[in-house]
Amino acid sequence: MKYQALMLALSATIGSHWANAAEPIETIQPIKITEPEKVELGKMLYFEPRLSKSGFISCNSCHNLSTGGVDALPTSIGDRWQQGPINAPTVLNADFMLAQFWDGRAKDLQEQAGGPIANPKEMGFTHELAVTTVASMPAYRERFAKVYGADKIDINTITDAIAAFEKTLVTPNSPFDKYLTGDQQAISADAKAGYEIFKSRGCAVCHNGPAVGGTMYMKMGLIKPFHTNNPAEGRKAVTGKEADKMVFKVPTLRNIELTYPYFHDGSVWSLAEAVNTMSDVQLGQKFSTEETAQVVAFLKTLTGDQPQIVLPILPPSTAETPKPQPFAQ
Amino acid sequence: MKYQALMLALSATIGSHWANAAEPIETIQPIKITEPEKVELGKMLYFEPRLSKSGFISCNSCHNLSTGGVDALPTSIGDRWQQGPINAPTVLNADFMLAQFWDGRAKDLQEQAGGPIANPKEMGFTHELAVTTVASMPAYRERFAKVYGADKIDINTITDAIAAFEKTLVTPNSPFDKYLTGDQQAISADAKAGYEIFKSRGCAVCHNGPAVGGTMYMKMGLIKPFHTNNPAEGRKAVTGKEADKMVFKVPTLRNIELTYPYFHDGSVWSLAEAVNTMSDVQLGQKFSTEETAQVVAFLKTLTGDQPQIVLPILPPSTAETPKPQPFAQ
Repeated sequence: MKYQALMLALSATIGSHWANAAEPIETIQPIKITEPEKVELGKMLYFEPRLSKSGFISCNSCHNLSTGGVDALPTSIGDRWQQGPINAPTVLNADFMLAQFWDGRAKDLQEQAGGPIANPKEMGFTHELAVTTVASMPAYRERFAKVYGADKIDINTITDAIAAFEKTLVTPNSPFDKYLTGDQQAISADAKAGYEIFKSRGCAVCHNGPAVGGTMYMKMGLIKPFHTNNPAEGRKAVTGKEADKMVFKVPTLRNIELTYPYFHDGSVWSLAEAVNTMSDVQLGQKFSTEETAQVVAFLKTLTGDQPQIVLPILPPSTAETPKPQPFAQ
Repeated sequence: MKYQALMLALSATIGSHWANAAEPIETIQPIKITEPEKVELGKMLYFEPRLSKSGFISCNSCHNLSTGGVDALPTSIGDRWQQGPINAPTVLNADFMLAQFWDGRAKDLQEQAGGPIANPKEMGFTHELAVTTVASMPAYRERFAKVYGADKIDINTITDAIAAFEKTLVTPNSPFDKYLTGDQQAISADAKAGYEIFKSRGCAVCHNGPAVGGTMYMKMGLIKPFHTNNPAEGRKAVTGKEADKMVFKVPTLRNIELTYPYFHDGSVWSLAEAVNTMSDVQLGQKFSTEETAQVVAFLKTLTGDQPQIVLPILPPSTAETPKPQPFAQ
């Protein structure tokens, strides 16, 4: 009940607080790439299907940069079409998150990147085979030598490069950011009204910071239970504490129009329904149809410039490259 | 036996013929894009996973522009991880082919593009649902209206746009093309020797034209049987003629270093082995180890500039967009 108490206390004061202080949302700045060779290498690895057992699945398969950094499925498709356990979070602006995965079990993007490669239900590979694969190609050896020094291809450098690329995947210049920085015409009157609701009714208690989320963990079903068939236990899986059951990292709302379906179980496809569910189970409030539409109008202003990605050209396999195993047992 | 007789007759004269005539291989010219809006629309559709039942498979899944326009698997992975029947041919330079698919059952790229969308083992969708999907998004409606006129979203315009994009996927400026146009330093002495073998020993009888293939159909196993577990019957499936059994479109050798594994059954991973098999079963010849290495050196000079693709940003689904069915029955 401590969350609930905290929440109610915060909700009561939040409107007046933010009326007199900084906005709860910070703008996103365009990225300045300081290590272009590492980023380019990371981009190759991000699109590299040979980091999977099948030779078919890359990071981009489930965090598709054509579609908001997600696969737009309730839960992902993994090796041999296995059904993933949870909705794939967007890779866009992910470096703003306090930790990675819904339960925060990876401390940063580098640690996260190693997970799916070796997860039997996702890419189904091993770190050892991933290293052997990358090291089997002269073009990769040259690039790693340039970025990390000779003979430095291991799972740490592979995931470091992927993380370096992912850190560039930010989405600046959203209409809302333009509004925040003074352009009153950048968003509609409905969106402005929606933002006021977002702040005054409590949404921004959890959804704040540059990514409009990702700054804290919070219980899903704070005021009322959230009904789901998804067995994920949230932070409890990390901490072992019963109090952390159903406590998840607050997801980013940046580009939310692109990252359906919503919630950790991917159960909701419409933004209006997502807003209504959240106001109900997290805030114990019922928004009017107009209020919901206004909040949705606000949320749609959070779509920023999508990263412009030139598809990498990957080097050919060699005789030393492990063969893909798409169908073998 | 008519192929065999033809082949032997051609082989006997081929060296002297080409010594005094035009080269059997034509250079590939950079593409001039005359309809950029149609090409851009086609690129979006090429990367559009919502043209599949699962929402997970796009044209680019099996004709991956990061990896030579193929999936680099013996046979492809389709809807629900079904195993495809035949090796995915490269989309690169595909417009130079006399017809599409290994058996030539589609007359052109537009006709080809409709196949996988509706094939239950590939994208598993229907043309009707593909049209409904595309037409459900305002951004697509606008683009189609601009390119084709209002209310012109149908399977013909969808595949026309995809084909328009695919026609731009050519690979000029290969070392071999530079050599052909006069740069004697563009390829090694081994590659030059390999090219002479390629011409004098009969390879170029079938592998000719700008794509170094795709100008004719030919029996696989012309002189000796080609042993395979793959049940594909080749042109027989199109013509119904017993004489067309195991007759396939001659594949392009452009970018062959990238488009392993080889042959319609994807059974061979090394270029040297592919060359030896072809010299054996198609030409009834045994190349020395040195000759094989020289032909391989020549083949590797056929890798051209890969198309530089800026990943398209796809519009979000709407309430009218059919939901993906990745796991439903």
